[in-house]
Amino acid sequence: MKVHLLWKKEEIDDLQLKGDKIAVVFDVLLATSTIATCLAYGAKQVTPVLNEKEALKEAEAIKKDDVCLVGERDGITIKGFLDPVPLFLKNHIAGKKVVLSTTNGTVAIRKAASAKKVYMASLLNGEAVARRLIERYDNESIVVVCSGSNNSFCIEDFYGAGYFIDQLVSAYSHEQVDLTDSAMAAKLFYENLSDQAENVLQNSHVGKMMAEYGVENEVEFVSRKGILSVVPRLFDGKTIVAED
Amino acid sequence: MKVHLLWKKEEIDDLQLKGDKIAVVFDVLLATSTIATCLAYGAKQVTPVLNEKEALKEAEAIKKDDVCLVGERDGITIKGFLDPVPLFLKNHIAGKKVVLSTTNGTVAIRKAASAKKVYMASLLNGEAVARRLIERYDNESIVVVCSGSNNSFCIEDFYGAGYFIDQLVSAYSHEQVDLTDSAMAAKLFYENLSDQAENVLQNSHVGKMMAEYGVENEVEFVSRKGILSVVPRLFDGKTIVAED
Repeated sequence: MKVHLLWKKEEIDDLQLKGDKIAVVFDVLLATSTIATCLAYGAKQVTPVLNEKEALKEAEAIKKDDVCLVGERDGITIKGFLDPVPLFLKNHIAGKKVVLSTTNGTVAIRKAASAKKVYMASLLNGEAVARRLIERYDNESIVVVCSGSNNSFCIEDFYGAGYFIDQLVSAYSHEQVDLTDSAMAAKLFYENLSDQAENVLQNSHVGKMMAEYGVENEVEFVSRKGILSVVPRLFDGKTIVAED
Repeated sequence: MKVHLLWKKEEIDDLQLKGDKIAVVFDVLLATSTIATCLAYGAKQVTPVLNEKEALKEAEAIKKDDVCLVGERDGITIKGFLDPVPLFLKNHIAGKKVVLSTTNGTVAIRKAASAKKVYMASLLNGEAVARRLIERYDNESIVVVCSGSNNSFCIEDFYGAGYFIDQLVSAYSHEQVDLTDSAMAAKLFYENLSDQAENVLQNSHVGKMMAEYGVENEVEFVSRKGILSVVPRLFDGKTIVAED
């Protein structure tokens, strides 16, 4: 098993993810936490889109009663869409087909779509995704993608990635997992801060911004490690469902 | 004081380093460790160049007895040049004008040349460079550049950067230093591994490669934190000398 880490979605290029790579995308604040929560609380699927226009087009193909439009642009909720924050959303998406537009996370997922398999992980479900990879795959190349924010690194994605890589390495012996320097840095970073999830998120650039918007409760919620067992996977490069 | 960190030299663009930014370049394995050692052991100056051709051209302008050509390309010593490893070099450069060509570190320094000031730091002299910045500057924007290797992140540069940022933050109060997420990640990474310098370097990709080349002693040497008090600075975008 080889594990590599990309610092931000802008680092993704087709070459790195083509062929037999498995991509695991992290946008801890907030898209991949939102996706895990939606699927865990009964959404049938989540379609990650690049912008409002694409969201409306995707929604046209879904029965009106079934669709749930969710999204933000640069942190501002898109008019007529629901706010893409998990604690709020979990009471609104049961049985729905969610169309999700975000500035970073959904864009990262779409950029990663050329990988053999694309999983979405967060602190909420990082353990479940790691366990799934351990059960189903062997000798694969895994690329952990930290989405980041507008071409900048986000420390909470690095922390989430470290948590995930730590789970992988613990399940195998150290000799069976080959970490690149970036993957090793994430693991060592996490190891020494494993009990500091909420603290790391609160002190991150995005975490502070969310506190200014008055949604500290969402930051607190998504810092809970391993509480969701859902394993979101992208199918046909387009739709995320909970993998059986 | 604002502190930002770049993961690899390919992230440098003129926009980020223009204006009033101070750049601090790390190539722990090995160029900035080599530069610090050369100046500490009596070299008059070090001219960082991009390749063999430029090195030979620079050397022409220096009196033959004074010049010392040092360099590697992709880890292989350039024919007719000295091996750019500090423990070996320190006995060959007293009184000399060193022309240094490396695959990554000297290229990173040249890319950073548009900054207001450019310093070169390593584990050997990171404390001295931090102290100098604290003494001479206030309210500046510092960009710590991890050189990396061939468009890849190097964990030893991240560790060195964390060591340096930790020194800065300790000297000021936390409120006076504004760290971006990447700078904060480096500091937290270092804090929890502060007694692991040699271990981190030995387990890095480049460190392992150097062990294969039989120069573990060089890795051991450059992992010694704070043993050199030299503060190398780039003047006129071209020549590195020890700043008074």
